[in-house]
Amino acid sequence: MPKTLIKQGVIVTAADTYQGDILVEDERIVQIGQNLRPERDAEVIDATGCYVFPGAIDEHTHMAMPFNGTVTADWNTETVAAAIGGTTTIVDFAKQEKGDTLAHTAEVWKRRADGRTAIDYSLHVAITDLTDAVLDEIAHIVQSGVATLKLFMAYKGETMVDDATLLTTLQVARDVGALVMVHAENGDAIDILQRQLIAAGKTEPKYHAVSRPIEIEAEATRRAIALAKVADAPIFIVHVSGLDSLEEVRRARAAGQPVFAETCPQYLLLDESYLVLPDFEGAKYVCSPPLRAALNQEKLWHGLANGTLQAIGTDHCSFNFAQQKHLGAHDFRKIPNGVGGIENWIQLLYTYGVKTGRISLNQLVELTSTNPAKYMGLFPKKGTIAVGTDADIVVFDPAVEQTITAANQKQNSDYSVYEGFRIDGAPRHVLLRGKVIVTEGAYVGDLRDGQFVHANPYGAA
Amino acid sequence: MPKTLIKQGVIVTAADTYQGDILVEDERIVQIGQNLRPERDAEVIDATGCYVFPGAIDEHTHMAMPFNGTVTADWNTETVAAAIGGTTTIVDFAKQEKGDTLAHTAEVWKRRADGRTAIDYSLHVAITDLTDAVLDEIAHIVQSGVATLKLFMAYKGETMVDDATLLTTLQVARDVGALVMVHAENGDAIDILQRQLIAAGKTEPKYHAVSRPIEIEAEATRRAIALAKVADAPIFIVHVSGLDSLEEVRRARAAGQPVFAETCPQYLLLDESYLVLPDFEGAKYVCSPPLRAALNQEKLWHGLANGTLQAIGTDHCSFNFAQQKHLGAHDFRKIPNGVGGIENWIQLLYTYGVKTGRISLNQLVELTSTNPAKYMGLFPKKGTIAVGTDADIVVFDPAVEQTITAANQKQNSDYSVYEGFRIDGAPRHVLLRGKVIVTEGAYVGDLRDGQFVHANPYGAA
Amino acid sequence: MPKTLIKQGVIVTAADTYQGDILVEDERIVQIGQNLRPERDAEVIDATGCYVFPGAIDEHTHMAMPFNGTVTADWNTETVAAAIGGTTTIVDFAKQEKGDTLAHTAEVWKRRADGRTAIDYSLHVAITDLTDAVLDEIAHIVQSGVATLKLFMAYKGETMVDDATLLTTLQVARDVGALVMVHAENGDAIDILQRQLIAAGKTEPKYHAVSRPIEIEAEATRRAIALAKVADAPIFIVHVSGLDSLEEVRRARAAGQPVFAETCPQYLLLDESYLVLPDFEGAKYVCSPPLRAALNQEKLWHGLANGTLQAIGTDHCSFNFAQQKHLGAHDFRKIPNGVGGIENWIQLLYTYGVKTGRISLNQLVELTSTNPAKYMGLFPKKGTIAVGTDADIVVFDPAVEQTITAANQKQNSDYSVYEGFRIDGAPRHVLLRGKVIVTEGAYVGDLRDGQFVHANPYGAA
Amino acid sequence: MPKTLIKQGVIVTAADTYQGDILVEDERIVQIGQNLRPERDAEVIDATGCYVFPGAIDEHTHMAMPFNGTVTADWNTETVAAAIGGTTTIVDFAKQEKGDTLAHTAEVWKRRADGRTAIDYSLHVAITDLTDAVLDEIAHIVQSGVATLKLFMAYKGETMVDDATLLTTLQVARDVGALVMVHAENGDAIDILQRQLIAAGKTEPKYHAVSRPIEIEAEATRRAIALAKVADAPIFIVHVSGLDSLEEVRRARAAGQPVFAETCPQYLLLDESYLVLPDFEGAKYVCSPPLRAALNQEKLWHGLANGTLQAIGTDHCSFNFAQQKHLGAHDFRKIPNGVGGIENWIQLLYTYGVKTGRISLNQLVELTSTNPAKYMGLFPKKGTIAVGTDADIVVFDPAVEQTITAANQKQNSDYSVYEGFRIDGAPRHVLLRGKVIVTEGAYVGDLRDGQFVHANPYGAA
Ligand SMILES: [Zn+2]
Ligand SMILES: [Zn+2]
Ligand SMILES: [Zn+2]
Ligand SMILES: [Zn+2]
Ligand SMILES: [Zn+2]
Ligand SMILES: [Zn+2]
Ligand SMILES: [Zn+2]
Ligand SMILES: [Zn+2]
Repeated sequence: MPKTLIKQGVIVTAADTYQGDILVEDERIVQIGQNLRPERDAEVIDATGCYVFPGAIDEHTHMAMPFNGTVTADWNTETVAAAIGGTTTIVDFAKQEKGDTLAHTAEVWKRRADGRTAIDYSLHVAITDLTDAVLDEIAHIVQSGVATLKLFMAYKGETMVDDATLLTTLQVARDVGALVMVHAENGDAIDILQRQLIAAGKTEPKYHAVSRPIEIEAEATRRAIALAKVADAPIFIVHVSGLDSLEEVRRARAAGQPVFAETCPQYLLLDESYLVLPDFEGAKYVCSPPLRAALNQEKLWHGLANGTLQAIGTDHCSFNFAQQKHLGAHDFRKIPNGVGGIENWIQLLYTYGVKTGRISLNQLVELTSTNPAKYMGLFPKKGTIAVGTDADIVVFDPAVEQTITAANQKQNSDYSVYEGFRIDGAPRHVLLRGKVIVTEGAYVGDLRDGQFVHANPYGAA
Repeated sequence: MPKTLIKQGVIVTAADTYQGDILVEDERIVQIGQNLRPERDAEVIDATGCYVFPGAIDEHTHMAMPFNGTVTADWNTETVAAAIGGTTTIVDFAKQEKGDTLAHTAEVWKRRADGRTAIDYSLHVAITDLTDAVLDEIAHIVQSGVATLKLFMAYKGETMVDDATLLTTLQVARDVGALVMVHAENGDAIDILQRQLIAAGKTEPKYHAVSRPIEIEAEATRRAIALAKVADAPIFIVHVSGLDSLEEVRRARAAGQPVFAETCPQYLLLDESYLVLPDFEGAKYVCSPPLRAALNQEKLWHGLANGTLQAIGTDHCSFNFAQQKHLGAHDFRKIPNGVGGIENWIQLLYTYGVKTGRISLNQLVELTSTNPAKYMGLFPKKGTIAVGTDADIVVFDPAVEQTITAANQKQNSDYSVYEGFRIDGAPRHVLLRGKVIVTEGAYVGDLRDGQFVHANPYGAA
Repeated sequence: MPKTLIKQGVIVTAADTYQGDILVEDERIVQIGQNLRPERDAEVIDATGCYVFPGAIDEHTHMAMPFNGTVTADWNTETVAAAIGGTTTIVDFAKQEKGDTLAHTAEVWKRRADGRTAIDYSLHVAITDLTDAVLDEIAHIVQSGVATLKLFMAYKGETMVDDATLLTTLQVARDVGALVMVHAENGDAIDILQRQLIAAGKTEPKYHAVSRPIEIEAEATRRAIALAKVADAPIFIVHVSGLDSLEEVRRARAAGQPVFAETCPQYLLLDESYLVLPDFEGAKYVCSPPLRAALNQEKLWHGLANGTLQAIGTDHCSFNFAQQKHLGAHDFRKIPNGVGGIENWIQLLYTYGVKTGRISLNQLVELTSTNPAKYMGLFPKKGTIAVGTDADIVVFDPAVEQTITAANQKQNSDYSVYEGFRIDGAPRHVLLRGKVIVTEGAYVGDLRDGQFVHANPYGAA
Repeated sequence: MPKTLIKQGVIVTAADTYQGDILVEDERIVQIGQNLRPERDAEVIDATGCYVFPGAIDEHTHMAMPFNGTVTADWNTETVAAAIGGTTTIVDFAKQEKGDTLAHTAEVWKRRADGRTAIDYSLHVAITDLTDAVLDEIAHIVQSGVATLKLFMAYKGETMVDDATLLTTLQVARDVGALVMVHAENGDAIDILQRQLIAAGKTEPKYHAVSRPIEIEAEATRRAIALAKVADAPIFIVHVSGLDSLEEVRRARAAGQPVFAETCPQYLLLDESYLVLPDFEGAKYVCSPPLRAALNQEKLWHGLANGTLQAIGTDHCSFNFAQQKHLGAHDFRKIPNGVGGIENWIQLLYTYGVKTGRISLNQLVELTSTNPAKYMGLFPKKGTIAVGTDADIVVFDPAVEQTITAANQKQNSDYSVYEGFRIDGAPRHVLLRGKVIVTEGAYVGDLRDGQFVHANPYGAA
């Protein structure tokens, strides 16, 4: 591969902001300097006036995932959208089928991804059926490069696990260096509330949120944290949606417990008022946990700024409106849960986070790249700009101004939850392990570019 | 029945402390005055130098209850012990057998009690098998005078209910005026920890406590509170054993939620150090939740003093050491859970609570009589000294000094967890609905004295 | 004096609610019973359908107090208004003039009151000039029946004391059984903010509130509590106006510190939106601390219900609008601080507290009579209905419906901050030490009825 | 200056840990790469097996500062000690004399430092006399490169300012980009307590701590934060010594307020038990705030790990024991307040923080270099390893094992508070703006090496 020299950009890491040139060779960053002279064979990218970020790492995606009888948008479109938006690695949730092994689960997922992904990927495995055999398998799956386990405390009768499973998994995970991630909502309570709502004829999208009040998210968060304390294991809470759950994370961290947590752009930027849009449009915004009252947004931003939340993931779980979301036209329980967002999340966070002063540029990088890499076992190969790391690089032009519209998006969906949102800045060039896959905002890569990334056990870095 | 005149005592209610004479007629207090002249036919009790308390109400007892293949101490002995100690009403937990109706459960319990109780009693019904039929029955059982429901979040495979049951019960309870009480510990987690401890050969009594850390009590407390919030129902947390759970109660109450809670004398006066006594003596102190680190005691006293905790109950659940506790000689899981304490609780609380300044005399009455009566639907018939109320009266001589020893106790057990505790004050006379059942500290009543007391729905008073 | 028999009312104390008859003789309650037969010479008051409350005790009033060059409404009118509204005792703040002794301060205040008060009164002494001589005097003033000291952390250059004074006073108070009450706002900060606002031409009433943000009330509350901790002394925080301060009280109480606090009806029922009324009407609502954002109201009600706040006082500090409030027409700093409210406070709290379910009837009595009596050293002479206590009794008819209007009020002011508020219930009869001073809602007493009440040292009861 | 090439070290920044070579030229880092080939004229430093840290920045020192009639250890010795320990920049507190200007204060301080400092320095100015002229001067002092202001809430009669001064300064600072740092203890309370202790004959060193309980530190912290909120200004709390103060910082940050705080090694590693050492040895450990109960240490470590505390400074304020500390032989108030610690702080934090797993290597760099640089306006010139930054570099050999003893120290004092502490790791080489000032652990620099560093206004970076 030819060498590449990225010149005159303002390099931003989780800690630093400085002007410098970056020399890329053999997929990696080999040199950073001032006024590096381009070698003969080097391609030169002029980054003047641009920020140079490490490629974003979306630690929370659901590609081509079966859900409620349908399936989320596929790798081939969504990873291209991701690339254009500055994301160079995702960590996708490989969901165990009942009775399946973890190894086979990961294998199935890799088969779906390989040859169909524009960017690198790593995997979490979502355990839904914890037999003794599966318990024994955890050590092996970690050794095979899948170091994060996901458990659902919700979706009763489907993926939900009981507290015994959660505790046992935490104990085993602690011993083998796996990090347990939990979807924290009380599935029992949701199930009861949903039956009652439907029985009462309350079938519209907004009742999805009514059936999942924040109290039962906060409760489950507290519960998971308590079980982790008992297991003496670290834990990672996904998609914290509002203040009540955030408080549980804060309390545990104040007490010195290794509790980590993410939130998602939709909880920072959208709120429950979207759920009552007419003509079933509320269904577009149905995800779990649901969108909350607007006052939670500022609390989550504070949590990002003050270190209570360590990461942002998109929970990209994309469906189309015309067919898929309409599966729940007469019963909100049948609306596929999830929203898309991987295409523009960095721009949204830059616009509404950095430019408003809520978080710093360094925090943007930390929250969307460095920390995801660290917690998911990908650091320092991924997640920063330093010599020796993979040359996953985004040249981000802050001067671009755009408005999000589904009409233009690369995400394979007929709508965007951020329709009409103004965004500042855009990736001009994106490199994946040194290869330019986006130039002047256009995708120029190949679906064979992306590779599986072996994750290291928690605490190994 | 002849009239009785109690003269010159210092009458203490939850609010007041004043000198006065009390005239009792036809089971009730009919007059309170200064220098009431004894009518011709009135028996006169001189209460000079004594406090006159309303009879204590122990809202939390387990009489003749099957547990782990044995049975707790019986009504005939324990209620006499209670009477001598100043308790004139208990609210006992009638435990539903799987498949049984609530009505039959209560009936079984009444059959055990009637004719064998020295004092009045009311009942909670502990639901362990919530079928649709049982759900429908809740309204009826409330109308029949059993207004409080108990649910266990622990004891997996036995009495433990899942969150769906808890939530549903809370909803129904709210509608029919029942108050739900919960034993808050995470049964799933305990089950796992216990299996692991036993598998590791850790069978001694102290491991009972290890298998039930306070984190999982606090977690369950938080969970029950969250479900009550969702159900818009009041909730009563039994036997709060330490700071972590107390904090959950405080947070909910600070937010305005109708959450109520009790603690027990053993959590105020004993601590985990007893569990490691040699010669299996630790088993004497095995109860659930277990005794905690000593520092929790002062926090619980603060909780009583500042209104976070509203009541004290004994959780009297008495076994003997020689046979019953020894069932667990080789496996702590088989140690019957529970300790006795109904005989001296008022004296202990007077000595270690009132005389140390931790709570006031009025608070003693409020916590052990007035509030239990109010929350359990017995007020104002029970729980205070006022005209019109049942003449359940304790003439308490603060000058008596004693030391607790099993050798002298009326409780039917071969040990006391308070062995060697010095206590100040003692009931000199006790009246049950006007009848003197204790005179000069000696029981002079009859086991047919006690009656079932119809409890009113929550909020009806 | 003739005997009086109050028949068939529902007697309400801080603990109890029951039907009974009350016999009054020689200023005191001598008997409470069921169906007491009227003696020959007894006057009979029929209380059928009415509640019988102990007379309310307003622990926080400012009668005839010089302030900013004017003076608050006087004893002769305000105590009549108080009586009609069910208040039978006030505890007024006797404010030390610079250089004056505490004894003389109290004497001046008594001179103003004696012969001009319809109801009983006790005194706090507000220390504004703590010399060594004054420090020595504290023990004496307590012995003379003034057991509560007030210190202002605000009003710089006037009544404000520094932290050294506050700490020293707390230490001495602890030793002699005085209870220190503080007005907690940071006077230094207010002074700066006020100068800046005036300099910026911001002179309207609403800027009074801007100059006293809740942060600096909460800060001062925390500070006073810390100094009390250091001094090992109890402390009483007056007029908690919102959540931030309430939290400070809660935190200290949770830690077991003897911290007590009151709020006032205006903080429960009014909010900052009144301050922007046109035509200078905002000035009517100017008091310190200022009215807060509406969301604080519910938090304060929760604080009353859950025991964080122990009492309610009116902070009755009444001025007229036409002249007195207009002193600040061009400078909010010159608006006399304070609002009236003693006439209808019990009805307002009954209507908006009890009838809405926010507090119970018993809590109403506890918060407005029993606890004020206890904390201010007047219990059990005042503050409850029990034999032996002063016969300060209110026969309260809950069926009356009225609307507050200045046109009808007895308070000597040309406006009411509660203008247009609907109120349920009204005192039908009021007795002061057995003498009927209100009959059928009309004042029938004499300004010589009221007497000074000797307060006992803190903790003496 | 010749080029320098640092080869094969593990470079550690606040975000990254990676192997690389660093090329230094003209005082700055010009290139970082893998296997950089040494140019002909470059000096090569072999960093194999070593960490390469950015030079530590001690944001909190007191060099040659007059205090209580004596003076702290001087620049010429202490900066050499600092250099040897890996510190390449200090930010010293220039203390205004009453009546002096800020400009002159800074000038005096520079005169003391220039030509007598082995390392770079920047200045805070400690305002002790805020006249209107001084207030006006703040904008100018910021422009002159002194961007941080220090205010003392303690030391009554000496450097203590009142709340009016603090609030006003915060307002001005906000407008001109200065960051206000506060020493948060209640000086009024301390003054009272000290007088009382001395009057009671309690003159020994341990009473210094008794006179400064943590309550009054926490109170002052809360107060400063409230005033900053009112001023809408950021604030930096120096030397948080224990849990109570930490909680105040956490609460404010949770609410989104820009509050920052540091702790010091002595609060992490020492505790109050040292204060009772015999033979007046307790005096060695007298500093303000005082050492606290040991349980606070772990809470502070948690605060560092979870982001509540952003920085560590030494508060190096060194006296000798034989003469200076003995000034207080008969009166603890006369013991000069302060301890030394700049020589070994990085090693102590590495040993007891990083190696124990309490903080990560990256956090060590963040807390002792990057964040101090950011908050003190020195970033990115100082505080990280990146191209373009000053070549302040520490080659740290983790394999060295030492024991601290005063006998060997470079600090000019006859004792060390860390006497006998085992430490792992040591700086092998230290570069100051590219010049090697420490080689193989030995100081090889010159006291003319150090320069004043211009600090940028807060928020400018
Ligand atoms: Zn999820
Ligand atoms: Zn997801
Ligand atoms: Zn239980
Ligand atoms: Zn029980
Ligand atoms: Zn006031
Ligand atoms: Zn007032
Ligand atoms: Zn300091
Ligand atoms: Zn200092």
